[in-house]
Amino acid sequence: MCQLLSMNCNVPTDIIFSFEGFRRRGGLTDSHADGFGIAFFEEQGVRVFLDDKPSAISPVAELIEHYQIKSLNVIAHIRKATVGKVSLANTHPFVRELWGEYWVFAHNGNLNDYHYEGGLYFNPVGDTDSEQAFCFIVEQLKQKYPTKPPKKIIFEEVKLLAEQLRAYGNFNFILSNGSWMITHCSTNLHYIIREAPFGEASLLDKISTIDFYKETGPKDRVAVISTHPLTSNEKWTPFMPNSMMMFQNGEPIFY
Amino acid sequence: MCQLLSMNCNVPTDIIFSFEGFRRRGGLTDSHADGFGIAFFEEQGVRVFLDDKPSAISPVAELIEHYQIKSLNVIAHIRKATVGKVSLANTHPFVRELWGEYWVFAHNGNLNDYHYEGGLYFNPVGDTDSEQAFCFIVEQLKQKYPTKPPKKIIFEEVKLLAEQLRAYGNFNFILSNGSWMITHCSTNLHYIIREAPFGEASLLDKISTIDFYKETGPKDRVAVISTHPLTSNEKWTPFMPNSMMMFQNGEPIFY
Repeated sequence: MCQLLSMNCNVPTDIIFSFEGFRRRGGLTDSHADGFGIAFFEEQGVRVFLDDKPSAISPVAELIEHYQIKSLNVIAHIRKATVGKVSLANTHPFVRELWGEYWVFAHNGNLNDYHYEGGLYFNPVGDTDSEQAFCFIVEQLKQKYPTKPPKKIIFEEVKLLAEQLRAYGNFNFILSNGSWMITHCSTNLHYIIREAPFGEASLLDKISTIDFYKETGPKDRVAVISTHPLTSNEKWTPFMPNSMMMFQNGEPIFY
Repeated sequence: MCQLLSMNCNVPTDIIFSFEGFRRRGGLTDSHADGFGIAFFEEQGVRVFLDDKPSAISPVAELIEHYQIKSLNVIAHIRKATVGKVSLANTHPFVRELWGEYWVFAHNGNLNDYHYEGGLYFNPVGDTDSEQAFCFIVEQLKQKYPTKPPKKIIFEEVKLLAEQLRAYGNFNFILSNGSWMITHCSTNLHYIIREAPFGEASLLDKISTIDFYKETGPKDRVAVISTHPLTSNEKWTPFMPNSMMMFQNGEPIFY
């Protein structure tokens, strides 16, 4: 199994505080030590930092913790390999170009006996169930919609595809095109929306406290999604099992 | 204009020495200060580090100079923006999945009045001539070959496509699928093949000398390709104008 962390905001925000706690679960406060990855959207572009070292000790993770990258949509993943060997090609998040946009996907869970060899438009490169599921989703979307449909349609279509895929097992995933973020929960996924009045938050995985009041503007709104809550003194909401949401500008818009 | 650096080897090799000199051309010894990117293939996987800061001062470039990543195929690019604004979506190298492989592309030059809106399979995300040319190449290949043809065919087809594209202007580019590396020279591209007996090399852009004899095995072979030579005491070969080569295991196999 793996763990997920993501962020969707209404103003470009850095994820340093959350990542500081999250990365420690990759080999220090938890056992997800088979590599990590984090994708930052910046306008239409995306950059993905990957490493096969545990995120708790990776020099790439060390850079991320100290280099302020502001983004509206971030997806991070720490891996404990179950399906597919430990290799760069199997490291989440995965990226494909669909309708002239980069789509980024990360998954927590196992899809037992799920195999997707690829289609007309998209093929997996590595050998994880996760990348296969992602390719299946974007393949189905592109086959049905040669050009990009409205986001409400995208949400409904992905929901139907997620229902098919979760029949194979645990399918907690995060998906973003840089504008919106889709979260799907089979079993285990939590979120929090931080907005005014901002207060203090303390990490669970490291002695570290931040006062968001000092770090944010009054209209800022940030949704943080994580497999398990990251802070001890905030109220995280568990997603309902087998539920899907779309976030934009730091708030749920479809569910 | 921009500058290119790439490496193709027969054993996984780090690019630290070459990158140490090359990155200084991004804002220190030369003026290519509009961001940089570097892609490392590791088996089927690829990781791309991008930054919009000049490579001479970028914290991401600093990481690359000190973090030993061994790879058979590396492509790096420092940008001086001419077509397309400075943004992450316009930062080379570009990546697309073709035939279940990641293909990576970086370009130096300008294709004047070249516009490619996208096709059935591949669409540009940013607004550079370079990404448009790359999408055109992979689109044409996939339209003609739904499954992967032998590499000799790939070489011949890319050569024909490069001939079409270079009618629009300067088209020096590097393209790799992680197994082979294609280099195309319109005007300015050099290479060197390092193999036994190995000797010393001194960088042009920084006081730094390496003795490859101490760093390599007797059977190692490394091709380094760069817009301009990187070292002062080695013989770099200029590519012929309007020529294309394919390297594999550190040596040219087709030209």
